[in-house]
Amino acid sequence: MTNIKQIAKLAGVSVTTVSRVLNEHPYVNEAKRSAVKEAIEQLHYTRNSNAVHLAKGKTFLIGVITPYTNHPYFGAIIEGISKQANAAGYHLVIFHTNYQRHKEIQALDMLRTKQLDSIIICSRVVEMKILRAYKGYGPIILCEDTMQTEFPSVCIDHYAAVTCAFDHLIKNNYSKIGLVLGRMIGRNSHQRLKAYHESVEKYQLDARKEWLIDGIYNMTDGGEVFHRWDELVEKPDALIISNDEAAAGFILQAKQSGKDVPGNLGIIGFNNDSVAEMLGITTVSLPLEQIGKTAFDLSQLEKEPAQIKLEFRLIKRNTV
Amino acid sequence: MTNIKQIAKLAGVSVTTVSRVLNEHPYVNEAKRSAVKEAIEQLHYTRNSNAVHLAKGKTFLIGVITPYTNHPYFGAIIEGISKQANAAGYHLVIFHTNYQRHKEIQALDMLRTKQLDSIIICSRVVEMKILRAYKGYGPIILCEDTMQTEFPSVCIDHYAAVTCAFDHLIKNNYSKIGLVLGRMIGRNSHQRLKAYHESVEKYQLDARKEWLIDGIYNMTDGGEVFHRWDELVEKPDALIISNDEAAAGFILQAKQSGKDVPGNLGIIGFNNDSVAEMLGITTVSLPLEQIGKTAFDLSQLEKEPAQIKLEFRLIKRNTV
Repeated sequence: MTNIKQIAKLAGVSVTTVSRVLNEHPYVNEAKRSAVKEAIEQLHYTRNSNAVHLAKGKTFLIGVITPYTNHPYFGAIIEGISKQANAAGYHLVIFHTNYQRHKEIQALDMLRTKQLDSIIICSRVVEMKILRAYKGYGPIILCEDTMQTEFPSVCIDHYAAVTCAFDHLIKNNYSKIGLVLGRMIGRNSHQRLKAYHESVEKYQLDARKEWLIDGIYNMTDGGEVFHRWDELVEKPDALIISNDEAAAGFILQAKQSGKDVPGNLGIIGFNNDSVAEMLGITTVSLPLEQIGKTAFDLSQLEKEPAQIKLEFRLIKRNTV
Repeated sequence: MTNIKQIAKLAGVSVTTVSRVLNEHPYVNEAKRSAVKEAIEQLHYTRNSNAVHLAKGKTFLIGVITPYTNHPYFGAIIEGISKQANAAGYHLVIFHTNYQRHKEIQALDMLRTKQLDSIIICSRVVEMKILRAYKGYGPIILCEDTMQTEFPSVCIDHYAAVTCAFDHLIKNNYSKIGLVLGRMIGRNSHQRLKAYHESVEKYQLDARKEWLIDGIYNMTDGGEVFHRWDELVEKPDALIISNDEAAAGFILQAKQSGKDVPGNLGIIGFNNDSVAEMLGITTVSLPLEQIGKTAFDLSQLEKEPAQIKLEFRLIKRNTV
């Protein structure tokens, strides 16, 4: 590979002069500048940006830790990060973790070794104490409903969102309410579960453990939840389903099996995806793309870490 | 920032020795090795990976050029790339282009400046002659139905896939067939259009320009296509819709408006998304995730550029 020593030799100038020409330094004699440019052309020299980054200490790359890429919830957050990053000349490096701890640490290590300028964590399994160990190497932004103030974060109040859905069901005379989730662990899920359990207690309702279902992410999963519901002897009369795609899968499967929503049970989805609009699903609208955009903006701030909570909104349609 | 000169000074060894220790070179005196390690610890030295990449000429980053990130077609391809890359210790750098030419060139420039090891192009607007100019800088993989042999490529035969859908409609006695597409330009779309026009000619059918609709990507768009279809005086009796989400949007909107599929018209979708399974949509199944996986595999080959065509499959359900 050509390096600047060879260019200097061919142009008959010093290495310093070559470096000045490459970095567009103003104080270079015009004759020397053209000699260097000619040598660069003759040697087909291509600058290695890793060398430039080494000098400037910036890569314009932002790491994004996400369990899944092709997923309605995380897909929308990543779309938001991507749009905002794009406009600022940054690109995303995607760490598709499937919630594997070592993949998350791999990303953090790339921040430490300066291959990334910052990291946005959409969802994680790694502990806070590990994050703390990487704090000095660059901004780490959390997209979760977090109580801490050490890291910048942006989130929706998932506790309040589930409580709002629950209250809406109560107001509509449902009393056997189930909850369908992606997973049970993680900060956001924890908040959702807490809201569910506290609401059950507040209204002194019956709640069975088979009314709490996790591992449900997409339309096919939602269809399977219908079959599980259908086989229960003691059925919930309403379900809060943590994403609209799964809610849609449930509803479509219910219709095919001759059951009616909300006739046989009420459904509230989450997100306000286009499928919710199309099927008239009552849902809690979450500003997912805005979470992504805000997370990028937070990565660019040098100030004290800010904690931002974005608003959700109940959209009443025809499934409650 | 600490550099290896400072480490060498503190450890009382040469810079070469420090470099050998950092690179785990076997021929280093044990006493010197511990002196260097101690100095590294004292100085809180963190290795800058850009320096390592500079030396090794490899970044383990793969650029992915995609018009959209949160999209059923491209989302599934990216998921495939991501899974395969992940297993091989690579990460993806996403260039979310919205089909803007300068964004595609930005990615190619990062290949040229060695910030990426290779590039996978999911879909592009940039001309072949531009791609040729970047050919020497690293593997460039095309995910398109391409006639060229200069670049490795992986694709589905979109011409044959649309022809197959068309033939299936003819066999089921439809004769006024329309085509609904994402866009008109680009290699894959061109092949789809060609198949459509040649089939119309082969069967000597009527085809009106308002039966050819583009700009249709998601469920909401599909719902709008229904309204356009509904307002036509001369209506097609069948539509080939280039993605299942849009087909689902059309069908759901049709049902809400009291129209029946396939009673009022036949629909064939593309992809075999979960929504197609759920709604019983007849569709052409495309191995999108496999395209992504194969594209990654092609980026790792040093051999002559290979052209790979993957198989599609007609799945007969209830909308034809």
